[in-house]
Amino acid sequence: MSTMTKTDVTETIVAMARAARRSALALARSTSGERRAALHTIADAVDAASPDIVVANAMDLAAADEVGITGAMRNRLELDAGGVAKLAGAIREVADQPDPLGGIEDVQVRPNGLRVGRMRIPLGVVAMIYESRPNVTADAAALCLKAGNAVVLRGGSEAIHSNRAIAEAIRRGLAASALPTESVQLIGVTDRSAIDVLLQQEEWIDLVIPRGGEGLIRAVTEKSRIPVLQHYKGVCHVVLDATAPLERAVEIVHNAKVQRPGVCNAAETLLVHEGAAERLLPAVATRLSADGVELRGCPRTREILAEFDVAPATDEDWEAEYLDLVLAVRVVSDLEAAIAHIARYGSNHTEAIVSDDDDSIDAFVSAIQSSTVVVNASTRFADGGELGLGAEIGISTSKLHAYGPMGANELTTQKFVVVGQGQVRR
Amino acid sequence: MSTMTKTDVTETIVAMARAARRSALALARSTSGERRAALHTIADAVDAASPDIVVANAMDLAAADEVGITGAMRNRLELDAGGVAKLAGAIREVADQPDPLGGIEDVQVRPNGLRVGRMRIPLGVVAMIYESRPNVTADAAALCLKAGNAVVLRGGSEAIHSNRAIAEAIRRGLAASALPTESVQLIGVTDRSAIDVLLQQEEWIDLVIPRGGEGLIRAVTEKSRIPVLQHYKGVCHVVLDATAPLERAVEIVHNAKVQRPGVCNAAETLLVHEGAAERLLPAVATRLSADGVELRGCPRTREILAEFDVAPATDEDWEAEYLDLVLAVRVVSDLEAAIAHIARYGSNHTEAIVSDDDDSIDAFVSAIQSSTVVVNASTRFADGGELGLGAEIGISTSKLHAYGPMGANELTTQKFVVVGQGQVRR
Repeated sequence: MSTMTKTDVTETIVAMARAARRSALALARSTSGERRAALHTIADAVDAASPDIVVANAMDLAAADEVGITGAMRNRLELDAGGVAKLAGAIREVADQPDPLGGIEDVQVRPNGLRVGRMRIPLGVVAMIYESRPNVTADAAALCLKAGNAVVLRGGSEAIHSNRAIAEAIRRGLAASALPTESVQLIGVTDRSAIDVLLQQEEWIDLVIPRGGEGLIRAVTEKSRIPVLQHYKGVCHVVLDATAPLERAVEIVHNAKVQRPGVCNAAETLLVHEGAAERLLPAVATRLSADGVELRGCPRTREILAEFDVAPATDEDWEAEYLDLVLAVRVVSDLEAAIAHIARYGSNHTEAIVSDDDDSIDAFVSAIQSSTVVVNASTRFADGGELGLGAEIGISTSKLHAYGPMGANELTTQKFVVVGQGQVRR
Repeated sequence: MSTMTKTDVTETIVAMARAARRSALALARSTSGERRAALHTIADAVDAASPDIVVANAMDLAAADEVGITGAMRNRLELDAGGVAKLAGAIREVADQPDPLGGIEDVQVRPNGLRVGRMRIPLGVVAMIYESRPNVTADAAALCLKAGNAVVLRGGSEAIHSNRAIAEAIRRGLAASALPTESVQLIGVTDRSAIDVLLQQEEWIDLVIPRGGEGLIRAVTEKSRIPVLQHYKGVCHVVLDATAPLERAVEIVHNAKVQRPGVCNAAETLLVHEGAAERLLPAVATRLSADGVELRGCPRTREILAEFDVAPATDEDWEAEYLDLVLAVRVVSDLEAAIAHIARYGSNHTEAIVSDDDDSIDAFVSAIQSSTVVVNASTRFADGGELGLGAEIGISTSKLHAYGPMGANELTTQKFVVVGQGQVRR
């Protein structure tokens, strides 16, 4: 593939984008039952292709070993027979979710007798650019099809064999369904120029979703002529209000930081009301230290936690997405100071408050403009599955179109449908 | 102002964007009553400033006369005392619309007892870049404030005096209200580099809405790091199905083309089912010709309308947004051919069908993916006011976030609000 010329790459990508658009027009007219049945057929095809997918994954793992990829990165790449069975199961779950399409909402009759409503329709063609985990190939395809969209997938080169094998299975499933086979296409070209060409196909592609590190997302946003759904990072905060009960505070902070520190909805900064700091911080620090969490604190935090090994926090700590067992801790004068801190350093992902005071809770919910605001629970619930959306295609931290966890419903839009009896405008 | 250095321009724009963000945080916490009262105060301030605004407008008109701007362009610029009174009236109408903010929707209780809902919140900071008509200054400010957003306005240099006078009145109104004075800011710098700097303030601005010619919109889309709501053009179609009743067909085609040909929801192409072409086309052509509409037709159209002066249509005609008394006409073999023509040449704005056949209507409504689909009425109804949204800030022809006419509701987004009793994730 590396011998393809620039013209070849361009022609390949444009042809794929156009085929996706053609498929999207057919998908928009498919029935709910057809989409559901197709997803079950695809799940069966993935199950049937399990041995091929595992062999392909072994090739990716061998390549990873050759270049020395280890630890979490290698784990994310690995896909055994059990993993493939989970993939198929996830596709079946999406298949059986409620259909997001077709309903007409907000119907009103205008004074001139026109009936106006809004009908939910697919976005059209989605391009998904992602790194590492090959299961995104199956998840993204399933969610896009559920919402009636065609999808062009571009996974990372480190998972290319796994992604090809999964995409091949999906296409076999599609070929045996009522939906167009080209509804799901994987870009097999690993040449990076393929992404540049893809991001210029605004005539055929409606939305780009980049999923991966901040570098990938920034690069896609800067180059794309197509609207991009951005998920930069999660600098999530837990705020302990003056009234926060001790045990609840400790459990929520611990869960938000420790349960899975490498994900975007894990807490990175703890803000504690001055009026509760001496009461709460020692117990919080004890619980976190027992799990090896490193604390970096403001001067007041270090004073209260003098018996703990708390490093001084700098401005960089307030901005940091550690994705690790590190927590920045700041004592704030009051709730307003906590809100101001989040407005300055937050990433519009998820912030939680622990409080027993209704006024504080109301002020927090009203003031915080992040995509998920949590009251008396862990930030770790900011997840499509946990919030009842079913599977999740990403988490948007920009406010346009969708904000927060995105499920199949967020891969749709609404058109106006206007029904008259011959009305003209005067 | 033209003597400002590049550094001056950058500092000015960045300071405005930051002030807008500060205002947005306060606006997000304002009450429905405060926003409504502020808009009434602003409307009064605009009324009070009427003489100043008319004088400022006279300066713009004099400058326009100097460079030889005439006709429709000059008319769009003109604002007399009656025009200013209308501006103020429009602001009062927006003030009294239902509040789009604050409601919690889609509430559900998860199996673990978490209550999950979605609360409608402002987008934050909107940047509006527009040409010509100074009333956009007032309309955009009113809609943004209604939805709790701060707005940075950048009008065209040809209306700079009018825009400054209107913005000054708005600020006087804001200063007498409970909302931050810097909620509405007009960029007084006419230097074009101001736009480039503005489009890089993704840290402070959430959305850019360009309103004007296709050139402006393309330039903004290519340069912006901020999400852009696009409204490229309206190549709207009217389809006459085999069953279209003669009189209704004639009236709808005539209204869609002639009532106001210079706007984006006017029809540009007529598609006629072969089975109805001989029956309908002569009457349609007679009615249009009486109003001086120039027809450009496919061979079959020219054959049927041999007695009319129909020029041959080229591929360019199918793509044309004439914004004038010109109509492209094509006879198509059936409804599917009409749908395929629209998929190829349409602009996702508005398409209408005239038909008495329910199956054809259902097929058309299901297949057409444009932002507004009209059945048995004129395309001219694709307008926020006509569809019941109240005032309109633009019409989106890209499917992300909002699709079709956009009112105050489309200047909001939804955050997740999750309320627990101490839940943590296992």
